[in-house]
Amino acid sequence: MNRGLIIGRFQPFHLGHLAAIKFALRSIEELIIAIGSAEKSHEIRNPFTAGERIEMVKNSLDVSKGIDVRKILIIPVPDTNVHYLWTYQLDAMVPKYKMVFTNDPFTSMFFREKGTNVIEPPLHRREVLFATGIRSRIAENREWKALVTPQTVEVIEDIHGILRIKAIHARSTVHA
Amino acid sequence: MNRGLIIGRFQPFHLGHLAAIKFALRSIEELIIAIGSAEKSHEIRNPFTAGERIEMVKNSLDVSKGIDVRKILIIPVPDTNVHYLWTYQLDAMVPKYKMVFTNDPFTSMFFREKGTNVIEPPLHRREVLFATGIRSRIAENREWKALVTPQTVEVIEDIHGILRIKAIHARSTVHA
Amino acid sequence: MNRGLIIGRFQPFHLGHLAAIKFALRSIEELIIAIGSAEKSHEIRNPFTAGERIEMVKNSLDVSKGIDVRKILIIPVPDTNVHYLWTYQLDAMVPKYKMVFTNDPFTSMFFREKGTNVIEPPLHRREVLFATGIRSRIAENREWKALVTPQTVEVIEDIHGILRIKAIHARSTVHA
Amino acid sequence: MNRGLIIGRFQPFHLGHLAAIKFALRSIEELIIAIGSAEKSHEIRNPFTAGERIEMVKNSLDVSKGIDVRKILIIPVPDTNVHYLWTYQLDAMVPKYKMVFTNDPFTSMFFREKGTNVIEPPLHRREVLFATGIRSRIAENREWKALVTPQTVEVIEDIHGILRIKAIHARSTVHA
Amino acid sequence: MNRGLIIGRFQPFHLGHLAAIKFALRSIEELIIAIGSAEKSHEIRNPFTAGERIEMVKNSLDVSKGIDVRKILIIPVPDTNVHYLWTYQLDAMVPKYKMVFTNDPFTSMFFREKGTNVIEPPLHRREVLFATGIRSRIAENREWKALVTPQTVEVIEDIHGILRIKAIHARSTVHA
Amino acid sequence: MNRGLIIGRFQPFHLGHLAAIKFALRSIEELIIAIGSAEKSHEIRNPFTAGERIEMVKNSLDVSKGIDVRKILIIPVPDTNVHYLWTYQLDAMVPKYKMVFTNDPFTSMFFREKGTNVIEPPLHRREVLFATGIRSRIAENREWKALVTPQTVEVIEDIHGILRIKAIHARSTVHA
Repeated sequence: MNRGLIIGRFQPFHLGHLAAIKFALRSIEELIIAIGSAEKSHEIRNPFTAGERIEMVKNSLDVSKGIDVRKILIIPVPDTNVHYLWTYQLDAMVPKYKMVFTNDPFTSMFFREKGTNVIEPPLHRREVLFATGIRSRIAENREWKALVTPQTVEVIEDIHGILRIKAIHARSTVHA
Repeated sequence: MNRGLIIGRFQPFHLGHLAAIKFALRSIEELIIAIGSAEKSHEIRNPFTAGERIEMVKNSLDVSKGIDVRKILIIPVPDTNVHYLWTYQLDAMVPKYKMVFTNDPFTSMFFREKGTNVIEPPLHRREVLFATGIRSRIAENREWKALVTPQTVEVIEDIHGILRIKAIHARSTVHA
Repeated sequence: MNRGLIIGRFQPFHLGHLAAIKFALRSIEELIIAIGSAEKSHEIRNPFTAGERIEMVKNSLDVSKGIDVRKILIIPVPDTNVHYLWTYQLDAMVPKYKMVFTNDPFTSMFFREKGTNVIEPPLHRREVLFATGIRSRIAENREWKALVTPQTVEVIEDIHGILRIKAIHARSTVHA
Repeated sequence: MNRGLIIGRFQPFHLGHLAAIKFALRSIEELIIAIGSAEKSHEIRNPFTAGERIEMVKNSLDVSKGIDVRKILIIPVPDTNVHYLWTYQLDAMVPKYKMVFTNDPFTSMFFREKGTNVIEPPLHRREVLFATGIRSRIAENREWKALVTPQTVEVIEDIHGILRIKAIHARSTVHA
Repeated sequence: MNRGLIIGRFQPFHLGHLAAIKFALRSIEELIIAIGSAEKSHEIRNPFTAGERIEMVKNSLDVSKGIDVRKILIIPVPDTNVHYLWTYQLDAMVPKYKMVFTNDPFTSMFFREKGTNVIEPPLHRREVLFATGIRSRIAENREWKALVTPQTVEVIEDIHGILRIKAIHARSTVHA
Repeated sequence: MNRGLIIGRFQPFHLGHLAAIKFALRSIEELIIAIGSAEKSHEIRNPFTAGERIEMVKNSLDVSKGIDVRKILIIPVPDTNVHYLWTYQLDAMVPKYKMVFTNDPFTSMFFREKGTNVIEPPLHRREVLFATGIRSRIAENREWKALVTPQTVEVIEDIHGILRIKAIHARSTVHA
């Protein structure tokens, strides 16, 4: 089957991720969405658990026009202590795939060293649609809701995610 | 949402698992299928990788009458070194759920100690539909294909799974 | 300071353990009680968590005549994946000690290879005072309460420990 | 029992910690002192082993007026790779407790997400009584002994801790 | 370069291993000797540390006629928790190789699934030259020295290895 | 035997390392070269795998005048999560040694706390012969080849190591 793989941490899932998924679905039959750093949560770069991120992605795709969720698998993938082993661990956790969609040069490097076909989705409104910026906006009470899906907003509010992000940022400041 | 969780290792996915999934879907809106011992493969009790098992489950459900795969999430969950932490690790990996479907008394114990509602699906042709028996049948060249879905057969053949099970059994005999 | 170390898993804490602690206290000023396999629980050989075992030991010693609990430290120590490192990991987790009390030949071997003084406490009613036997008695509804302290009975009942031991044994039988 | 839990890394144990322990003992019957990051030592933020820190705490409390050490348990608790699991791992390592004493907003967050009662002890001379500052004072040959107990001084001198802190700081400078 | 890889646990290094190494050296320019389960020691199937095993192999080869130790690398390789990742972890630990020498059907399976060329060295006096048998002979005071090299005997005696094997076997009997 | 141990990460192996090895060989009969942080690769401070580094060292020594590679063992040693355990883990992985050659004050500290004899090799052209500087030179297209052996250059080119270092640096910049 012509299956593809897209990799992200989705901290949180935003409109740039949604655009990349739509881009990928144009050239493949089935798409695996790998939720990276799945074991991480409650830290500055990774505030949300894998379960919370899966819910953001699933709920957003369920209502997206032009996306058939029956063609999608959402799979959490933990980090490996040994970087070199990450793509091999991934291969044990997901069905076989033919190409990888990613914009991260480091991730690309590993797949290219293995000989896997890597495609870079076009970046969509990159100046605002990046997760680090969105987390800062949440921590600093700046506008962020228009940058993510309504389903992502709903999950974050439901788990008191704004309070969590502020508590994590407070600690970092204390330790700095 | 009225979401449920069913837990199995699916080594391999068989008709008893399919019946249990259909049973669970009768009383809930959305079902998480947790693939247990996800990090294990290539050993007697766990010959198949999580990726291979996900493919068995997904392909089987895709063509099952009366199952809407849009209401299903398939999530691999690794074991924890510390038994006590397993259900908590699970909670970090999956969206929130209201009840658990399992026939394993040990798994039930953990959820009941936590106060989670546990439902035991009725066992379907238990004398033949159990994975240990099916793996033995494969190793010993006895009939097994009628006990699983055609999609499971296809995945096992595609990955040369019969040879793998025989190689694992050969080793066990040598070490005994 | 003339400090000693006694090692056990205390699954559960019984009258033989109590006698060994009293024996050790006769020749030292302060005693470290190391709770071994601290990370393990909910399995046949290790049904109780470290926290539950600490409570059994502490509550039993608090009311024991002739024991001054101010001279005692109770420290949980996890297993190491690498056997060779266990005594070194232990040394990082406890204050310095001058001698070790143990009846296990394997544990003795490690300390003797390191040059530590090992003393074997006399075994007290060994034919009934051993934890494996006590766990079997609990699983099989045979008499066990007279073999442990009243405080151990109280902790086990408080945590529904009899049910837990039976659930763990049930599972083992299923898998055999 | 009305048992409480106080959490710290105690790198090293200082007069602020002692004041917080006395504060906690006013409202509870028994106190668990959890030594956090127990597996860490010989690094900038964690120079001392858990065993060394236990000795600082125990020796200091043994001679403190108004503290009954029979009401105290000192338990080392390692970090978890997965933040989300830390409080659950803790629960497996210590007897049951009813409230938590901590001033760390991040630690509070986890307990509050679980529904545990969190109390913030009043900070005592916060401008000097914080461990990062005390470690810097030691590394830079500034006055520090009046900020900790005489027993902490004794342990640090006994293990050549001043040399150790300087060696660790030397390395950090080299790598910067 | 025409480099080969031979895999063993060498518990202990015996004359069968020596014959297999000589066999491999006939068809390659350089040989990597991978010491498997390198992190294990002091247990029934793995009594010796990697360091002790390296010493057995190195000392034996140093004096073997017809072996040029300049063409040999001896590399300890730990087990992986995840079987599937073992050959990939190995690849990160050793220089590139073109073929693998092993008689273990399970090890062969992994390399064959990856497409690596596997050669089975002829077994030499298999009825006595197998490590499990040699360890039993040591534990039971039967003749074993003629089955290994004089250098292996010397290392085992130097580390009091006979006592160690007996202590490990004693424990197993106690637990049985 | 009068065996010594030299420790380095060799990221990459350069002329300063070669001089230190020659220095060590003057006072000992056999030298163990421990490749530290063996499990790490593909990151800023550790771009190369242990296998790649072993190849750099072995190929360089094979052609070095005055070095007898039969007196040398090259052993990869992973980091430990627990710093305190590192030297003990090392002892399990290598044959017994009588002295350690290192210039790192932190590494020295651990061996000195254990009572091991530590010798600091004289630093050779320290202002250019340090691995961090050589990695920066590679990333920034500055001259670096004269600072390492021709064999190191050959290995780095063979594995496309320059591209790898640039990809790793690109990522770091993105995340900063």
